[in-house]
Amino acid sequence: MYDTAVIGTGPAGLSAALCLKLHEKELIWFGSPKMSGKVEKSEKIANYPGLGLISGEELNQRFRAHAEEMGLVCTDQMVTSVMPMGGSFSLLAGNEVYQARTVLLASGVVSAKGFEGESDFLGRGVSYCATCDGFLYKGKTIAVYCGAERYEHEAAYLAEIAEKVYLYTPYRDSTLSLPNIERIGPIRAIFGGMKAGGIRLADGTEIPVDGVFCLRNAVAPSALLPGIALNGAHIETDRNQATNIPGVYAAGDCTGRPYQLTKAVGEGNIAAHAILEYLSE
Amino acid sequence: MYDTAVIGTGPAGLSAALCLKLHEKELIWFGSPKMSGKVEKSEKIANYPGLGLISGEELNQRFRAHAEEMGLVCTDQMVTSVMPMGGSFSLLAGNEVYQARTVLLASGVVSAKGFEGESDFLGRGVSYCATCDGFLYKGKTIAVYCGAERYEHEAAYLAEIAEKVYLYTPYRDSTLSLPNIERIGPIRAIFGGMKAGGIRLADGTEIPVDGVFCLRNAVAPSALLPGIALNGAHIETDRNQATNIPGVYAAGDCTGRPYQLTKAVGEGNIAAHAILEYLSE
Repeated sequence: MYDTAVIGTGPAGLSAALCLKLHEKELIWFGSPKMSGKVEKSEKIANYPGLGLISGEELNQRFRAHAEEMGLVCTDQMVTSVMPMGGSFSLLAGNEVYQARTVLLASGVVSAKGFEGESDFLGRGVSYCATCDGFLYKGKTIAVYCGAERYEHEAAYLAEIAEKVYLYTPYRDSTLSLPNIERIGPIRAIFGGMKAGGIRLADGTEIPVDGVFCLRNAVAPSALLPGIALNGAHIETDRNQATNIPGVYAAGDCTGRPYQLTKAVGEGNIAAHAILEYLSE
Repeated sequence: MYDTAVIGTGPAGLSAALCLKLHEKELIWFGSPKMSGKVEKSEKIANYPGLGLISGEELNQRFRAHAEEMGLVCTDQMVTSVMPMGGSFSLLAGNEVYQARTVLLASGVVSAKGFEGESDFLGRGVSYCATCDGFLYKGKTIAVYCGAERYEHEAAYLAEIAEKVYLYTPYRDSTLSLPNIERIGPIRAIFGGMKAGGIRLADGTEIPVDGVFCLRNAVAPSALLPGIALNGAHIETDRNQATNIPGVYAAGDCTGRPYQLTKAVGEGNIAAHAILEYLSE
Protein backbone atom coordinates (compact mmCIF):
# COMPACT_ATOMS: atom_id res chain seq x y z
CA MET A 1 0.00 0.00 0.00
CA TYR A 2 1.50 3.33 -1.10
CA ASP A 3 0.89 6.53 0.86
CA THR A 4 0.23 8.42 -2.35
CA ALA A 5 -0.19 7.80 -6.05
CA VAL A 6 0.80 10.86 -8.07
CA ILE A 7 -0.59 10.78 -11.59
CA GLY A 8 1.40 13.02 -13.92
CA THR A 9 5.03 14.02 -14.39
CA GLY A 10 4.44 17.63 -15.39
CA PRO A 11 5.39 20.56 -13.14
CA ALA A 12 2.51 19.96 -10.69
CA GLY A 13 3.25 16.24 -10.28
CA LEU A 14 6.97 16.86 -9.91
CA SER A 15 6.46 19.61 -7.35
CA ALA A 16 4.23 17.36 -5.24
CA ALA A 17 6.50 14.32 -5.64
CA LEU A 18 9.50 16.34 -4.41
CA CYS A 19 7.65 17.41 -1.25
CA LEU A 20 6.29 13.94 -0.52
CA LYS A 21 9.69 12.33 -1.08
CA LEU A 22 11.33 14.86 1.27
CA HIS A 23 8.79 13.80 3.89
CA GLU A 24 9.72 10.17 3.24
CA LYS A 25 6.31 9.07 2.05
CA GLU A 26 5.91 5.87 0.06
CA LEU A 27 5.15 7.12 -3.39
CA ILE A 28 4.14 5.71 -6.74
CA TRP A 29 4.50 8.25 -9.50
CA PHE A 30 2.88 7.59 -12.87
CA GLY A 31 3.99 9.40 -15.99
CA SER A 32 6.65 9.70 -18.60
CA PRO A 33 10.41 9.55 -17.96
CA LYS A 34 10.54 12.45 -20.41
CA MET A 35 8.66 14.45 -17.72
CA SER A 36 6.60 17.19 -19.37
CA GLY A 37 6.05 17.16 -23.11
CA LYS A 38 4.20 20.44 -22.81
CA VAL A 39 7.08 22.21 -21.05
CA GLU A 40 9.58 20.65 -23.47
CA LYS A 41 7.72 22.08 -26.44
CA SER A 42 7.56 25.61 -25.02
CA GLU A 43 9.87 27.85 -26.98
CA LYS A 44 10.72 30.32 -24.22
CA ILE A 45 9.57 30.70 -20.64
CA ALA A 46 10.18 34.06 -18.96
CA ASN A 47 8.06 33.97 -15.82
CA TYR A 48 9.33 31.03 -13.81
CA PRO A 49 11.07 32.93 -11.00
CA GLY A 50 14.76 32.30 -10.65
CA LEU A 51 15.48 30.93 -14.10
CA GLY A 52 15.37 34.06 -16.25
CA LEU A 53 14.55 33.52 -19.90
CA ILE A 54 14.83 29.79 -20.47
CA SER A 55 13.87 27.37 -23.24
CA GLY A 56 11.24 24.77 -22.45
CA GLU A 57 13.67 22.07 -23.45
CA GLU A 58 16.26 23.23 -20.92
CA LEU A 59 13.68 23.65 -18.17
CA ASN A 60 12.30 20.18 -18.75
CA GLN A 61 15.85 18.84 -18.64
CA ARG A 62 16.28 20.62 -15.29
CA PHE A 63 13.04 19.02 -14.06
CA ARG A 64 14.39 15.57 -15.02
CA ALA A 65 17.72 16.30 -13.31
CA HIS A 66 15.97 17.48 -10.14
CA ALA A 67 13.85 14.33 -9.96
CA GLU A 68 16.96 12.22 -10.49
CA GLU A 69 18.92 14.12 -7.83
CA MET A 70 16.15 13.35 -5.34
CA GLY A 71 15.96 9.71 -6.32
CA LEU A 72 12.47 10.00 -7.80
CA VAL A 73 11.67 7.35 -10.41
CA CYS A 74 8.42 7.36 -12.32
CA THR A 75 6.38 4.40 -13.50
CA ASP A 76 5.82 4.71 -17.24
CA GLN A 77 2.22 3.49 -17.33
CA MET A 78 -1.08 5.22 -17.90
CA VAL A 79 -3.57 4.94 -15.09
CA THR A 80 -6.93 4.09 -16.62
CA SER A 81 -9.07 3.70 -13.54
CA VAL A 82 -9.11 4.84 -9.90
CA MET A 83 -11.51 2.97 -7.65
CA PRO A 84 -12.34 4.10 -4.10
CA MET A 85 -12.02 1.13 -1.75
CA GLY A 86 -13.24 2.65 1.52
CA GLY A 87 -10.29 4.57 2.93
CA SER A 88 -7.90 3.76 0.09
CA PHE A 89 -7.83 3.52 -3.70
CA SER A 90 -7.13 0.86 -6.32
CA LEU A 91 -5.44 2.14 -9.44
CA LEU A 92 -5.43 0.20 -12.68
CA ALA A 93 -2.46 0.83 -14.99
CA GLY A 94 -1.92 -1.49 -17.93
CA ASN A 95 -2.85 -4.85 -16.45
CA GLU A 96 -1.48 -4.07 -13.02
CA VAL A 97 -3.31 -2.91 -9.93
CA TYR A 98 -1.78 -0.57 -7.34
CA GLN A 99 -3.11 0.42 -3.91
CA ALA A 100 -2.69 3.87 -2.37
CA ARG A 101 -4.16 5.75 0.55
CA THR A 102 -4.31 9.05 -1.36
CA VAL A 103 -4.32 10.11 -5.01
CA LEU A 104 -3.07 13.29 -6.67
CA LEU A 105 -4.45 13.99 -10.13
CA ALA A 106 -1.89 16.09 -12.00
CA SER A 107 -2.38 14.82 -15.49
CA GLY A 108 -2.57 18.13 -17.29
CA VAL A 109 -5.43 19.57 -19.22
CA VAL A 110 -7.41 16.93 -20.98
CA SER A 111 -11.01 17.37 -21.87
CA ALA A 112 -12.24 16.49 -18.40
CA LYS A 113 -15.43 15.00 -19.75
CA GLY A 114 -14.10 12.87 -22.59
CA PHE A 115 -16.40 12.14 -25.52
CA GLU A 116 -20.13 12.06 -24.99
CA GLY A 117 -20.93 8.49 -23.92
CA GLU A 118 -17.27 7.62 -23.29
CA SER A 119 -17.57 6.90 -19.58
CA ASP A 120 -20.88 5.05 -20.11
CA PHE A 121 -19.23 2.44 -22.33
CA LEU A 122 -15.92 2.16 -20.49
CA GLY A 123 -15.09 -1.56 -20.34
CA ARG A 124 -18.01 -2.24 -22.68
CA GLY A 125 -16.46 -1.33 -25.98
CA VAL A 126 -14.43 1.67 -24.89
CA SER A 127 -10.77 1.09 -24.00
CA TYR A 128 -7.76 3.26 -23.18
CA CYS A 129 -5.10 0.61 -23.67
CA ALA A 130 -4.22 -1.03 -26.98
CA THR A 131 -1.90 -3.64 -25.52
CA CYS A 132 -4.44 -4.59 -22.82
CA ASP A 133 -7.59 -4.91 -24.90
CA GLY A 134 -6.49 -5.04 -28.55
CA PHE A 135 -6.80 -8.83 -28.77
CA LEU A 136 -10.57 -8.54 -28.15
CA TYR A 137 -11.00 -6.91 -31.57
CA LYS A 138 -9.34 -9.43 -33.86
CA GLY A 139 -10.98 -9.19 -37.27
CA LYS A 140 -13.38 -6.49 -36.10
CA THR A 141 -14.04 -2.84 -36.91
CA ILE A 142 -12.85 -0.22 -34.46
CA ALA A 143 -12.47 3.53 -34.10
CA VAL A 144 -9.23 4.92 -32.71
CA TYR A 145 -8.71 8.38 -31.27
CA CYS A 146 -4.93 8.85 -31.29
CA GLY A 147 -4.28 11.94 -29.14
CA ALA A 148 -0.55 12.32 -29.72
CA GLU A 149 2.17 11.10 -32.03
CA ARG A 150 3.68 8.99 -29.26
CA TYR A 151 0.60 6.71 -29.39
CA GLU A 152 0.82 6.00 -33.13
CA HIS A 153 2.63 2.72 -32.50
CA GLU A 154 -0.39 1.64 -30.44
CA ALA A 155 -2.72 2.64 -33.26
CA ALA A 156 -0.54 0.70 -35.71
CA TYR A 157 -0.65 -2.32 -33.41
CA LEU A 158 -4.44 -2.15 -33.36
CA ALA A 159 -4.51 -1.97 -37.16
CA GLU A 160 -2.58 -5.24 -37.27
CA ILE A 161 -5.27 -6.95 -35.22
CA ALA A 162 -8.48 -5.36 -36.42
CA GLU A 163 -10.04 -5.77 -39.84
CA LYS A 164 -10.71 -2.06 -40.20
CA VAL A 165 -9.66 1.04 -38.26
CA TYR A 166 -11.30 4.46 -38.40
CA LEU A 167 -8.60 6.84 -37.17
CA TYR A 168 -8.74 10.41 -35.94
CA THR A 169 -5.64 12.39 -34.92
CA PRO A 170 -6.19 15.89 -33.47
CA TYR A 171 -2.61 16.96 -34.34
CA ARG A 172 -1.16 17.74 -37.75
CA ASP A 173 1.47 15.90 -39.76
CA SER A 174 0.48 12.41 -38.79
CA THR A 175 2.19 10.05 -41.24
CA LEU A 176 0.59 6.83 -40.02
CA SER A 177 -0.69 5.03 -43.11
CA LEU A 178 -1.85 1.43 -43.49
CA PRO A 179 -4.24 -0.17 -46.04
CA ASN A 180 -6.95 -0.87 -43.45
CA ILE A 181 -6.80 2.57 -41.78
CA GLU A 182 -9.35 5.15 -42.88
CA ARG A 183 -8.99 8.72 -41.67
CA ILE A 184 -12.04 10.41 -40.16
CA GLY A 185 -12.88 13.84 -38.75
CA PRO A 186 -13.27 14.78 -35.08
CA ILE A 187 -15.25 12.35 -32.92
CA ARG A 188 -18.09 13.84 -30.87
CA ALA A 189 -19.90 10.92 -29.27
CA ILE A 190 -19.92 7.19 -28.69
CA PHE A 191 -23.29 5.46 -28.82
CA GLY A 192 -24.68 1.97 -28.45
CA GLY A 193 -26.89 -0.25 -26.33
CA MET A 194 -25.40 -2.67 -23.83
CA LYS A 195 -22.09 -2.17 -25.60
CA ALA A 196 -20.61 0.62 -27.68
CA GLY A 197 -21.96 0.24 -31.22
CA GLY A 198 -20.77 3.29 -33.10
CA ILE A 199 -19.37 6.79 -33.14
CA ARG A 200 -20.83 10.10 -34.20
CA LEU A 201 -18.49 12.63 -35.82
CA ALA A 202 -18.56 16.41 -35.53
CA ASP A 203 -20.26 16.62 -38.94
CA GLY A 204 -23.04 14.31 -37.76
CA THR A 205 -21.86 11.20 -39.65
CA GLU A 206 -22.47 7.99 -37.71
CA ILE A 207 -20.12 5.04 -38.16
CA PRO A 208 -20.94 1.61 -36.72
CA VAL A 209 -17.94 0.07 -34.89
CA ASP A 210 -17.33 -2.82 -32.50
CA GLY A 211 -15.08 -0.85 -30.19
CA VAL A 212 -13.45 2.53 -29.58
CA PHE A 213 -9.88 3.12 -28.40
CA CYS A 214 -9.09 6.51 -26.85
CA LEU A 215 -5.29 6.89 -26.81
CA ARG A 216 -4.50 10.01 -24.85
CA ASN A 217 -1.89 11.53 -22.55
CA ALA A 218 -4.33 10.98 -19.76
CA VAL A 219 -7.77 9.61 -19.20
CA ALA A 220 -10.50 12.21 -18.69
CA PRO A 221 -10.99 12.65 -14.93
CA SER A 222 -14.68 11.80 -15.05
CA ALA A 223 -13.88 8.49 -16.74
CA LEU A 224 -10.87 7.85 -14.52
CA LEU A 225 -12.76 8.45 -11.31
CA PRO A 226 -16.55 8.58 -11.72
CA GLY A 227 -18.21 11.00 -9.30
CA ILE A 228 -15.40 13.53 -9.23
CA ALA A 229 -16.82 17.06 -9.20
CA LEU A 230 -16.02 19.18 -12.23
CA ASN A 231 -16.22 22.88 -12.85
CA GLY A 232 -16.82 23.07 -16.58
CA ALA A 233 -13.94 21.16 -18.15
CA HIS A 234 -11.80 21.24 -15.00
CA ILE A 235 -11.58 19.39 -11.71
CA GLU A 236 -13.08 21.41 -8.90
CA THR A 237 -10.85 21.89 -5.85
CA ASP A 238 -10.79 23.99 -2.73
CA ARG A 239 -7.87 26.21 -1.66
CA ASN A 240 -6.05 23.10 -0.40
CA GLN A 241 -6.38 21.38 -3.82
CA ALA A 242 -8.79 18.86 -2.32
CA THR A 243 -11.50 17.48 -4.63
CA ASN A 244 -14.97 16.42 -3.49
CA ILE A 245 -13.66 12.87 -2.87
CA PRO A 246 -11.80 12.57 0.46
CA GLY A 247 -8.20 11.53 -0.17
CA VAL A 248 -8.20 12.71 -3.79
CA TYR A 249 -6.41 15.95 -4.69
CA ALA A 250 -5.78 17.72 -8.00
CA ALA A 251 -3.13 20.19 -9.16
CA GLY A 252 -1.93 21.92 -12.30
CA ASP A 253 -3.68 22.49 -15.62
CA CYS A 254 -6.41 19.94 -14.81
CA THR A 255 -7.79 22.34 -12.15
CA GLY A 256 -8.17 25.23 -14.57
CA ARG A 257 -6.58 28.40 -15.85
CA PRO A 258 -4.09 29.99 -15.94
CA TYR A 259 -2.34 27.13 -17.76
CA GLN A 260 1.02 28.19 -16.40
CA LEU A 261 3.81 26.06 -15.07
CA THR A 262 4.43 28.47 -12.20
CA LYS A 263 0.84 28.04 -11.08
CA ALA A 264 1.21 24.27 -11.49
CA VAL A 265 4.28 23.95 -9.24
CA GLY A 266 2.50 26.03 -6.61
CA GLU A 267 -0.59 23.85 -6.65
CA GLY A 268 1.52 20.69 -6.53
CA ASN A 269 3.24 22.03 -3.42
CA ILE A 270 -0.04 22.92 -1.72
CA ALA A 271 -1.57 19.53 -2.61
CA ALA A 272 1.45 17.67 -1.20
CA HIS A 273 1.14 19.50 2.10
CA ALA A 274 -2.59 18.83 2.26
CA ILE A 275 -1.88 15.14 1.58
CA LEU A 276 0.72 15.08 4.37
CA GLU A 277 -1.88 16.47 6.73
CA TYR A 278 -4.51 13.99 5.55
CA LEU A 279 -2.11 11.07 6.01
CA SER A 280 -1.21 12.19 9.53
CA GLU A 281 -4.84 12.14 10.64
CA MET B 1 -1.92 56.07 -12.29
CA TYR B 2 -0.29 52.67 -12.22
CA ASP B 3 -2.14 49.55 -13.40
CA THR B 4 -0.94 47.63 -10.36
CA ALA B 5 0.91 48.20 -7.12
CA VAL B 6 2.69 45.04 -6.00
CA ILE B 7 3.62 45.12 -2.32
CA GLY B 8 6.43 42.71 -1.54
CA THR B 9 9.60 41.47 -3.26
CA GLY B 10 9.45 37.87 -2.03
CA PRO B 11 8.72 34.94 -4.36
CA ALA B 12 5.00 35.79 -4.69
CA GLY B 13 5.61 39.46 -5.51
CA LEU B 14 8.38 38.61 -7.98
CA SER B 15 6.28 35.95 -9.70
CA ALA B 16 3.40 38.40 -10.16
CA ALA B 17 5.67 41.27 -11.22
CA LEU B 18 7.26 39.08 -13.93
CA CYS B 19 3.84 38.21 -15.41
CA LEU B 20 2.54 41.77 -15.26
CA LYS B 21 5.73 43.13 -16.83
CA LEU B 22 5.54 40.57 -19.64
CA HIS B 23 2.02 41.85 -20.30
CA GLU B 24 3.38 45.40 -20.40
CA LYS B 25 1.38 46.69 -17.47
CA GLU B 26 2.43 49.87 -15.66
CA LEU B 27 3.75 48.58 -12.40
CA ILE B 28 4.98 49.99 -9.10
CA TRP B 29 6.71 47.36 -7.04
CA PHE B 30 7.38 48.04 -3.37
CA GLY B 31 9.97 46.10 -1.42
CA SER B 32 13.64 45.57 -0.86
CA PRO B 33 16.32 45.50 -3.59
CA LYS B 34 17.67 42.53 -1.61
CA MET B 35 14.46 40.73 -2.66
CA SER B 36 13.54 38.10 -0.05
CA GLY B 37 15.28 38.08 3.31
CA LYS B 38 13.39 34.93 4.20
CA VAL B 39 14.59 33.02 1.13
CA GLU B 40 18.12 34.38 1.61
CA LYS B 41 18.27 33.00 5.15
CA SER B 42 17.07 29.52 4.16
CA GLU B 43 19.94 27.09 4.44
CA LYS B 44 18.86 24.63 1.75
CA ILE B 45 15.83 24.40 -0.49
CA ALA B 46 15.10 21.05 -2.13
CA ASN B 47 11.58 21.35 -3.45
CA TYR B 48 11.64 24.24 -5.89
CA PRO B 49 11.28 22.28 -9.13
CA GLY B 50 14.13 22.68 -11.58
CA LEU B 51 16.81 23.94 -9.24
CA GLY B 52 17.76 20.78 -7.34
CA LEU B 53 19.24 21.28 -3.91
CA ILE B 54 20.04 24.98 -3.70
CA SER B 55 21.02 27.40 -0.94
CA GLY B 56 18.61 30.18 -0.09
CA GLU B 57 21.32 32.71 -0.75
CA GLU B 58 21.89 31.42 -4.28
CA LEU B 59 18.17 31.21 -5.03
CA ASN B 60 17.61 34.76 -3.81
CA GLN B 61 20.52 35.86 -6.00
CA ARG B 62 18.80 34.13 -8.93
CA PHE B 63 15.57 35.96 -8.09
CA ARG B 64 17.44 39.28 -8.15
CA ALA B 65 19.10 38.38 -11.47
CA HIS B 66 15.75 37.39 -13.01
CA ALA B 67 14.14 40.68 -11.97
CA GLU B 68 17.09 42.59 -13.41
CA GLU B 69 17.02 40.60 -16.67
CA MET B 70 13.36 41.59 -17.10
CA GLY B 71 14.02 45.24 -16.26
CA LEU B 72 12.04 45.15 -13.03
CA VAL B 73 13.08 47.78 -10.49
CA CYS B 74 11.57 47.94 -7.04
CA THR B 75 10.80 50.99 -4.94
CA ASP B 76 12.50 50.62 -1.57
CA GLN B 77 9.71 52.06 0.56
CA MET B 78 7.25 50.54 3.00
CA VAL B 79 3.60 51.06 2.15
CA THR B 80 1.83 52.08 5.34
CA SER B 81 -1.67 52.67 4.04
CA VAL B 82 -3.88 51.64 1.13
CA MET B 83 -7.02 53.72 0.66
CA PRO B 84 -9.82 52.72 -1.73
CA MET B 85 -10.75 55.72 -3.88
CA GLY B 86 -13.72 54.35 -5.81
CA GLY B 87 -12.26 52.27 -8.64
CA SER B 88 -8.63 52.86 -7.71
CA PHE B 89 -6.36 53.02 -4.68
CA SER B 90 -4.10 55.57 -3.01
CA LEU B 91 -1.00 54.11 -1.41
CA LEU B 92 1.01 55.98 1.19
CA ALA B 93 4.71 55.07 1.35
CA GLY B 94 6.99 57.28 3.41
CA ASN B 95 5.62 60.73 2.66
CA GLU B 96 4.70 59.94 -0.93
CA VAL B 97 1.35 58.99 -2.37
CA TYR B 98 0.94 56.62 -5.32
CA GLN B 99 -2.19 55.78 -7.33
CA ALA B 100 -2.97 52.35 -8.73
CA ARG B 101 -5.99 50.64 -10.24
CA THR B 102 -5.24 47.31 -8.52
CA VAL B 103 -3.19 46.18 -5.53
CA LEU B 104 -1.42 42.91 -4.85
CA LEU B 105 -0.58 42.20 -1.22
CA ALA B 106 2.45 39.90 -1.15
CA SER B 107 4.17 41.12 1.97
CA GLY B 108 4.83 37.78 3.61
CA VAL B 109 3.53 36.50 6.85
CA VAL B 110 3.09 39.23 9.39
CA SER B 111 0.65 38.99 12.20
CA ALA B 112 -2.29 40.00 10.07
CA LYS B 113 -4.06 41.61 12.96
CA GLY B 114 -1.20 43.59 14.50
CA PHE B 115 -1.39 44.37 18.19
CA GLU B 116 -4.75 44.69 19.86
CA GLY B 117 -5.77 48.32 19.42
CA GLU B 118 -3.09 48.98 16.80
CA SER B 119 -5.40 49.83 13.95
CA ASP B 120 -7.69 51.86 16.24
CA PHE B 121 -4.91 54.30 17.09
CA LEU B 122 -3.21 54.44 13.70
CA GLY B 123 -2.39 58.11 13.03
CA ARG B 124 -3.40 58.88 16.63
CA GLY B 125 -0.30 57.81 18.47
CA VAL B 126 0.56 54.71 16.44
CA SER B 127 3.08 55.11 13.61
CA TYR B 128 4.91 52.78 11.22
CA CYS B 129 7.53 55.26 10.06
CA ALA B 130 10.26 56.74 12.27
CA THR B 131 11.48 59.26 9.72
CA CYS B 132 7.93 60.43 8.93
CA ASP B 133 6.55 60.87 12.44
CA GLY B 134 9.54 60.82 14.81
CA PHE B 135 9.65 64.62 15.13
CA LEU B 136 6.23 64.56 16.79
CA TYR B 137 7.72 62.86 19.85
CA LYS B 138 10.56 65.22 20.75
CA GLY B 139 11.16 64.98 24.50
CA LYS B 140 8.35 62.45 24.92
CA THR B 141 8.05 58.84 26.02
CA ILE B 142 7.45 56.21 23.35
CA ALA B 143 7.31 52.45 22.87
CA VAL B 144 9.08 50.92 19.89
CA TYR B 145 8.44 47.48 18.44
CA CYS B 146 11.51 46.77 16.29
CA GLY B 147 10.61 43.72 14.21
CA ALA B 148 13.96 43.12 12.52
CA GLU B 149 17.58 44.13 12.84
CA ARG B 150 17.34 46.21 9.69
CA TYR B 151 15.07 48.66 11.55
CA GLU B 152 17.42 49.24 14.48
CA HIS B 153 18.76 52.40 12.90
CA GLU B 154 15.19 53.75 12.94
CA ALA B 155 14.83 52.80 16.59
CA ALA B 156 18.15 54.54 17.35
CA TYR B 157 16.94 57.61 15.48
CA LEU B 158 13.79 57.67 17.61
CA ALA B 159 15.92 57.37 20.77
CA GLU B 160 17.78 60.53 19.72
CA ILE B 161 14.51 62.47 19.55
CA ALA B 162 12.46 61.01 22.39
CA GLU B 163 13.16 61.43 26.10
CA LYS B 164 12.61 57.75 26.82
CA VAL B 165 12.15 54.65 24.65
CA TYR B 166 10.66 51.33 25.73
CA LEU B 167 12.01 48.83 23.21
CA TYR B 168 10.95 45.31 22.31
CA THR B 169 12.75 43.18 19.71
CA PRO B 170 11.25 39.77 18.86
CA TYR B 171 14.61 38.46 17.55
CA ARG B 172 17.70 37.49 19.51
CA ASP B 173 21.10 39.10 19.64
CA SER B 174 19.98 42.71 19.38
CA THR B 175 22.92 44.88 20.40
CA LEU B 176 21.11 48.23 20.28
CA SER B 177 21.95 49.98 23.54
CA LEU B 178 21.48 53.64 24.45
CA PRO B 179 21.09 55.28 27.88
CA ASN B 180 17.45 56.24 27.34
CA ILE B 181 16.38 52.84 25.91
CA GLU B 182 14.75 50.39 28.30
CA ARG B 183 14.12 46.83 27.13
CA ILE B 184 10.66 45.38 27.66
CA GLY B 185 8.94 42.05 27.03
CA PRO B 186 6.45 41.25 24.25
CA ILE B 187 3.76 43.86 23.59
CA ARG B 188 0.17 42.60 23.54
CA ALA B 189 -2.03 45.68 23.25
CA ILE B 190 -2.13 49.42 22.73
CA PHE B 191 -4.71 51.32 24.76
CA GLY B 192 -5.82 54.90 25.20
CA GLY B 193 -8.69 57.32 24.74
CA MET B 194 -8.74 59.73 21.80
CA LYS B 195 -5.04 58.97 21.35
CA ALA B 196 -2.85 56.03 22.25
CA GLY B 197 -1.90 56.41 25.90
CA GLY B 198 -0.06 53.23 26.80
CA ILE B 199 0.89 49.66 26.06
CA ARG B 200 0.10 46.41 27.81
CA LEU B 201 2.74 43.68 27.82
CA ALA B 202 2.27 39.92 27.65
CA ASP B 203 2.81 39.70 31.42
CA GLY B 204 0.02 42.22 32.05
CA THR B 205 2.27 45.19 32.87
CA GLU B 206 0.86 48.48 31.60
CA ILE B 207 3.25 51.28 30.61
CA PRO B 208 1.99 54.79 29.84
CA VAL B 209 3.51 56.20 26.62
CA ASP B 210 2.82 59.14 24.29
CA GLY B 211 3.23 57.09 21.13
CA VAL B 212 3.99 53.66 19.72
CA PHE B 213 6.18 52.89 16.70
CA CYS B 214 5.73 49.51 15.02
CA LEU B 215 8.79 48.91 12.82
CA ARG B 216 8.11 45.81 10.79
CA ASN B 217 8.84 44.20 7.44
CA ALA B 218 5.29 44.96 6.54
CA VAL B 219 2.25 46.56 8.02
CA ALA B 220 -0.41 44.17 9.25
CA PRO B 221 -3.03 43.84 6.47
CA SER B 222 -5.91 44.91 8.68
CA ALA B 223 -4.06 48.13 9.56
CA LEU B 224 -2.86 48.63 5.97
CA LEU B 225 -6.29 48.23 4.46
CA PRO B 226 -9.13 48.32 7.00
CA GLY B 227 -12.03 46.09 6.03
CA ILE B 228 -9.97 43.38 4.39
CA ALA B 229 -11.36 39.96 5.26
CA LEU B 230 -9.09 37.73 7.30
CA ASN B 231 -9.14 34.03 8.00
CA GLY B 232 -7.47 33.80 11.38
CA ALA B 233 -4.09 35.47 10.95
CA HIS B 234 -4.19 35.33 7.15
CA ILE B 235 -5.81 37.23 4.31
CA GLU B 236 -8.79 35.37 2.93
CA THR B 237 -8.77 34.83 -0.84
CA ASP B 238 -10.68 32.81 -3.37
CA ARG B 239 -9.08 30.42 -5.90
CA ASN B 240 -8.12 33.44 -8.03
CA GLN B 241 -6.31 35.10 -5.10
CA ALA B 242 -8.97 37.81 -4.96
CA THR B 243 -9.72 39.31 -1.55
CA ASN B 244 -13.12 40.61 -0.46
CA ILE B 245 -12.19 44.08 -1.80
CA PRO B 246 -12.61 44.32 -5.59
CA GLY B 247 -9.24 45.12 -7.20
CA VAL B 248 -7.23 43.86 -4.22
CA TYR B 249 -5.45 40.50 -4.46
CA ALA B 250 -3.14 38.61 -2.11
CA ALA B 251 -0.48 35.93 -2.65
CA GLY B 252 2.22 34.08 -0.76
CA ASP B 253 2.68 33.53 2.96
CA CYS B 254 0.16 36.27 3.85
CA THR B 255 -2.66 34.05 2.54
CA GLY B 256 -1.74 31.13 4.79
CA ARG B 257 0.07 27.84 4.96
CA PRO B 258 2.05 26.09 3.62
CA TYR B 259 4.72 28.80 4.03
CA GLN B 260 6.57 27.56 0.99
CA LEU B 261 8.22 29.52 -1.75
CA THR B 262 6.89 27.14 -4.41
CA LYS B 263 3.35 27.82 -3.23
CA ALA B 264 4.13 31.55 -3.19
CA VAL B 265 5.32 31.72 -6.82
CA GLY B 266 2.21 29.81 -7.87
CA GLU B 267 -0.14 32.19 -6.11
CA GLY B 268 1.73 35.21 -7.49
CA ASN B 269 1.24 33.83 -10.98
CA ILE B 270 -2.48 33.20 -10.44
CA ALA B 271 -2.97 36.65 -8.90
CA ALA B 272 -1.23 38.35 -11.83
CA HIS B 273 -3.51 36.61 -14.30
CA ALA B 274 -6.58 37.53 -12.27
CA ILE B 275 -5.37 41.15 -12.21
CA LEU B 276 -4.87 41.10 -15.99
CA GLU B 277 -8.46 39.93 -16.38
CA TYR B 278 -9.74 42.55 -13.93
CA LEU B 279 -7.86 45.32 -15.76
CA SER B 280 -9.24 44.22 -19.12
CA GLU B 281 -12.85 44.54 -17.94
